[in-house]
Amino acid sequence: MTTSTALLLADLTGVAVFAASGASAAVAKRLDLFGVVFVGFVAALGGGIFRDLVINEVPPLAFADWRYAATAAVTAVAVFWLHPQLARLRTTVLVLDAAGLGLFTVTGTVKALDAQVPAVGACVVGMLTAIGGGLGRDLLTAEIPVVLRREIYAVAALAGSIMVAVLDGLGHANAAWLTVAAGSVFVLRLIALRRRWSAPVATLRPPPSGIRGPHP
Amino acid sequence: MTTSTALLLADLTGVAVFAASGASAAVAKRLDLFGVVFVGFVAALGGGIFRDLVINEVPPLAFADWRYAATAAVTAVAVFWLHPQLARLRTTVLVLDAAGLGLFTVTGTVKALDAQVPAVGACVVGMLTAIGGGLGRDLLTAEIPVVLRREIYAVAALAGSIMVAVLDGLGHANAAWLTVAAGSVFVLRLIALRRRWSAPVATLRPPPSGIRGPHP
Amino acid sequence: MTTSTALLLADLTGVAVFAASGASAAVAKRLDLFGVVFVGFVAALGGGIFRDLVINEVPPLAFADWRYAATAAVTAVAVFWLHPQLARLRTTVLVLDAAGLGLFTVTGTVKALDAQVPAVGACVVGMLTAIGGGLGRDLLTAEIPVVLRREIYAVAALAGSIMVAVLDGLGHANAAWLTVAAGSVFVLRLIALRRRWSAPVATLRPPPSGIRGPHP
Repeated sequence: MTTSTALLLADLTGVAVFAASGASAAVAKRLDLFGVVFVGFVAALGGGIFRDLVINEVPPLAFADWRYAATAAVTAVAVFWLHPQLARLRTTVLVLDAAGLGLFTVTGTVKALDAQVPAVGACVVGMLTAIGGGLGRDLLTAEIPVVLRREIYAVAALAGSIMVAVLDGLGHANAAWLTVAAGSVFVLRLIALRRRWSAPVATLRPPPSGIRGPHP
Repeated sequence: MTTSTALLLADLTGVAVFAASGASAAVAKRLDLFGVVFVGFVAALGGGIFRDLVINEVPPLAFADWRYAATAAVTAVAVFWLHPQLARLRTTVLVLDAAGLGLFTVTGTVKALDAQVPAVGACVVGMLTAIGGGLGRDLLTAEIPVVLRREIYAVAALAGSIMVAVLDGLGHANAAWLTVAAGSVFVLRLIALRRRWSAPVATLRPPPSGIRGPHP
Repeated sequence: MTTSTALLLADLTGVAVFAASGASAAVAKRLDLFGVVFVGFVAALGGGIFRDLVINEVPPLAFADWRYAATAAVTAVAVFWLHPQLARLRTTVLVLDAAGLGLFTVTGTVKALDAQVPAVGACVVGMLTAIGGGLGRDLLTAEIPVVLRREIYAVAALAGSIMVAVLDGLGHANAAWLTVAAGSVFVLRLIALRRRWSAPVATLRPPPSGIRGPHP
């Protein structure tokens, strides 16, 4: 198996686990088969579409390579039919999701750096690639994005993208080190899940209603 | 009347019916005049803006040709003032909306194919062009997008875009056949409305709450 | 201080006040530290990212110049820690927000005109630059965008962008006149706040439920 084949397989694995997460959320919201496929598609490919628009790689990979859309669609249809069994696979899916998070963070940051986005911007783009699909999924199902509320998720992605930018700055952005970066996001996410780590929440002392006003 | 004039008229008709659908939803949500115009604008032009960003036709037609924004704005203002009468025109609007769906599907798919998007991606882009405005409308009015929940709507658009891609592959993407494709979406949508066809919804046996977890 | 330094400072001031508005909304919704920073980032930079995608200035300034992301992040973290004190600064924040509105309207319209977007489209792009961040903030916190419901806000931005387009058409789009345009938005917004001006809301006589139907 060549490196590029390995990368493609890893990428499509990420697409599949994110599609499964989107489809599960859509099933829980009682969307129809099309809605389940659509939310799966957005969860799997939304982050990458945003990334490609921002770095002007058009048409985005999600539209340029049919294997991406096909993987997302097939996975979502499978979840639609199999979702009762999926509940028992929850731990497996969480682990795969953490792996997808690591992978999308690294590929997103690398692609942004390759497109001449400066380091700080590339970190943000890399993180958005990894969490963008989950944001889209929650917007479509009328939820405040979970990624903004719970646990170390986006923060793990951000840490990974900073690692990639530093490696790139030092001239060490090779396959081995990038795998380490993806693995770090993966492990950080798994530890956060196991230990139930969360980012802090502000204490609300005065009534917050008055604060909202600023921006209409 | 030349072909391009006919196409422009058809396109602007699609813009007007979609603007009317957005403005109606905004009126029902008690938005102010500006909000009604804004949601009308998004419903009418959101799908096309997304399409143009994805195929790198910038600035998008919605900003490059003032007649698009003007048509959407005038229609939305008219709905704002006339909406009680509109309720009686409901069947007319549904038929026009189905016509707009067919038209936007075909033009979206053709533009994507012309921009060298491969066939599968072009079908998705064509479908998104047709349903994107409705998605934006529902996101802005804090609804789970209706297109994801009810009836054969996006599926009709997807069928039409596949038809266009096949015609293109066979070298038959001429005006006559494209009109047939747009007409097919139109008829399929009308039959679905009349027969109350819907895509299937998954049966929820185990508590769905556990399923959500995967992604963040 | 040179003109470009002054412009950058003004721009970053706009970023900071919009980031503060987003972060305040996120704190009120009980988002965690990351969520507060993220919503602050979207509120401050979302409008500009949309503008840059539409005029094909990629990567968008928000990713190309680290000072934008840094200003948004630092401001949001400050709000996270200081938000009880912020409630007392409400009037100050409202005034700064009105200033940011004027500034983003003018820079957005000018950039669109410079990118050869025709006048009507440039006005819409300018207005969207100014209100886009607030829209993103409200979508992320699952609210119907406030900008669509209350007060003269987007309308002030639209008036300012039309003023810029007219100045441009007359060949008077120089620093002095553009400052007047930004100031006009600022003053219009302050007067609207003080007088509690609002755009009209449609009167709902017949049951609105029947109106929704048109689009799926």
